[in-house]
Amino acid sequence: MKEPTTQLQVIRRGTVDVLPEDEFLTKLRSGRPLRVKFGADPSAPDLHLGHCVALAKLREFQELGHTVIFLIGDFTGMIGDPTGRSETRKPLTRDQVRDNAVSYQEQVFKVLDPAKTEIRFNSEWMDAMNAADMVRLCAHFTVARMLEREDFARRYADERSIGIHEFLYPLVQAYDSVALKADVELGGTDQRFNLLLGREIQKAYGLEPQAIVTVPLLEGTDGRQKMSKSLGNAIGIADAADDIFGKLMSISDELMLRYHELLMMQDTVALRAAIDSGKTHPMDAKKELAAALVARFYDSEAADRARDAFERRFQKGLLPEDVPVFEWAENQTEPVSLVVVMKESGLTKSTSDARRLISQGAVRVDGERVSDAQHKLDPAARKALIQVGTRRVCSISFRS
Amino acid sequence: MKEPTTQLQVIRRGTVDVLPEDEFLTKLRSGRPLRVKFGADPSAPDLHLGHCVALAKLREFQELGHTVIFLIGDFTGMIGDPTGRSETRKPLTRDQVRDNAVSYQEQVFKVLDPAKTEIRFNSEWMDAMNAADMVRLCAHFTVARMLEREDFARRYADERSIGIHEFLYPLVQAYDSVALKADVELGGTDQRFNLLLGREIQKAYGLEPQAIVTVPLLEGTDGRQKMSKSLGNAIGIADAADDIFGKLMSISDELMLRYHELLMMQDTVALRAAIDSGKTHPMDAKKELAAALVARFYDSEAADRARDAFERRFQKGLLPEDVPVFEWAENQTEPVSLVVVMKESGLTKSTSDARRLISQGAVRVDGERVSDAQHKLDPAARKALIQVGTRRVCSISFRS
Repeated sequence: MKEPTTQLQVIRRGTVDVLPEDEFLTKLRSGRPLRVKFGADPSAPDLHLGHCVALAKLREFQELGHTVIFLIGDFTGMIGDPTGRSETRKPLTRDQVRDNAVSYQEQVFKVLDPAKTEIRFNSEWMDAMNAADMVRLCAHFTVARMLEREDFARRYADERSIGIHEFLYPLVQAYDSVALKADVELGGTDQRFNLLLGREIQKAYGLEPQAIVTVPLLEGTDGRQKMSKSLGNAIGIADAADDIFGKLMSISDELMLRYHELLMMQDTVALRAAIDSGKTHPMDAKKELAAALVARFYDSEAADRARDAFERRFQKGLLPEDVPVFEWAENQTEPVSLVVVMKESGLTKSTSDARRLISQGAVRVDGERVSDAQHKLDPAARKALIQVGTRRVCSISFRS
Repeated sequence: MKEPTTQLQVIRRGTVDVLPEDEFLTKLRSGRPLRVKFGADPSAPDLHLGHCVALAKLREFQELGHTVIFLIGDFTGMIGDPTGRSETRKPLTRDQVRDNAVSYQEQVFKVLDPAKTEIRFNSEWMDAMNAADMVRLCAHFTVARMLEREDFARRYADERSIGIHEFLYPLVQAYDSVALKADVELGGTDQRFNLLLGREIQKAYGLEPQAIVTVPLLEGTDGRQKMSKSLGNAIGIADAADDIFGKLMSISDELMLRYHELLMMQDTVALRAAIDSGKTHPMDAKKELAAALVARFYDSEAADRARDAFERRFQKGLLPEDVPVFEWAENQTEPVSLVVVMKESGLTKSTSDARRLISQGAVRVDGERVSDAQHKLDPAARKALIQVGTRRVCSISFRS
């Protein structure tokens, strides 16, 4: 194993909190493999790059010789929404949990080392817990302190209701650290309160408290909001290699640097300097990122193929065989409206659809993003490659 | 069974809330015996008159043909103080709960009709409840509404801590009404919130909600504070018949009327008028109350004996055989300090003890309460009967 202080340096990179650092260092100095807990929602096994920030950090723990405990919170998942008011939070069956777990494993083992990963379910100990045990667990924390949790504080202030069971969930998560004898718990910065609660509950149950490590929440491809499937700014780790590559090529240079830091665990000071000085072209740095991530989720051959396909399609002007060509019927000489062409070529159903997509930044012409819905194409160029998102592509050919 | 409206009238007398009255009336109209729940603390089976207000009302329900469910909350009793911080709230063992239950029965059956009483323990269903059931139960109420409960609201405002488990106890009590299919729950006014919560939880579990009946909290013999063993103003229902009789004879006329109303379920308008007009002497009304309560807890012969003993001791100047006589050694002619006599005769350990008891109103001389610690006894009277409380009595004999 590496020197404890060296390990600490590695772990600190790209994280927000490592708390308390002295306790963490003491644990590292013990020389034994630490038990690093990571909790996962049992209902949504569709992982995206947002999840990979934590997974990449967990992978680093493994490379340093530690054990990752990937905990699936199936106990609460199988309860669902107990009031029955939410259609979307139906209780999961034991079979669904098992299926989801298989799907999780397929995905997380693209990043984690299976030999150093324990997959666990909190129903193991929570199913054995009775009502009295639950009362005892709840005795170790106060209402006032629970109401300090940011989301609870906000909802309470806004007079939005908080079910009493919602106070139990963080306590269950904290108790998981007792059952697992976790040395470290890792999570997003939004988990900070819960991870710290784990420390308190471990102490209440006579254990040495875990250290906590938080990682930042990754922005989606829009560079603004937290990556989330429902916001449409996510890159799924089970997406097709070409899609992953293409989506990554579409992000801003700034976001590319952040992804380098948080997903590749790379010190980006040097990279930023190289780009600023003109030594490295941002496009190349982006390709490197995209290829590395595809290689992580597939393999290096898939990364090479995706890079080639991208270059052929969008850089060298060579059309991949599967790009449809649309012949502009009229003998056009005047510039023609992009939205009209999009509709006529079948790329969109209507011009208003086309306008909406342009305003969302989803449309490129010859590889350049178009943000003006009034944009016109010049028939003198003979052809134009229009992309809508990464999947809809059409080559427009104007009669000469 | 009596007419539902007549029953309602009987039940209403001496209660604070009967809620909602229309639903209660509908239940009465069903004609079936209603299940009337009353919850009791499993740890303190030393019942006093304060508990009898509720018991007397429950007895009325039985006389109207209904069933009383006397519920012993042993589930929480067996948890105790889960933080282990309180020495006084040690978890009860199953044996202790059983012993307490036997003691409870001995006491409550002095008032309740055993044939119409079910004694139940909430561990019956709570032991079978698992952690997930507890989460589901908690989902039916919100943090904000729980914080409206008066004691929680005050403690939260005062920044005194409330353990999260304390939110679970009212929910458990409410769930007891589900398990018991209670039609009515009766309690002190301090239980109002919890009884209403029972309604909500019954509804959440698909049951018709219980009606609630609250009875006032009885003042202790001091006429000021709520009756409580720890305040020393209580009359225990297992106390000796003479003690019960004597303590009741010592209360104020106003309190006597209140006890008549709340313990004898008597309409006191007529009694008050009779006293005011001089037709009834308050002493006689007090004796009637005392005799009736002794008869309730023992029998009518015991009541007669207690009345006789009281009259002999404190009214007719005849000493009961067991009153010790203390001969004042000095040939006393000057008035002598009461506190000195109390100490010398062994009634108290010290003169300061004697002063404290006088200031508490616990000391009588020849049946008259003495409130002045400077009080002197006149040896010319030859003898003086000093009582401290109802148990310590001494006859002082001065040499002539």
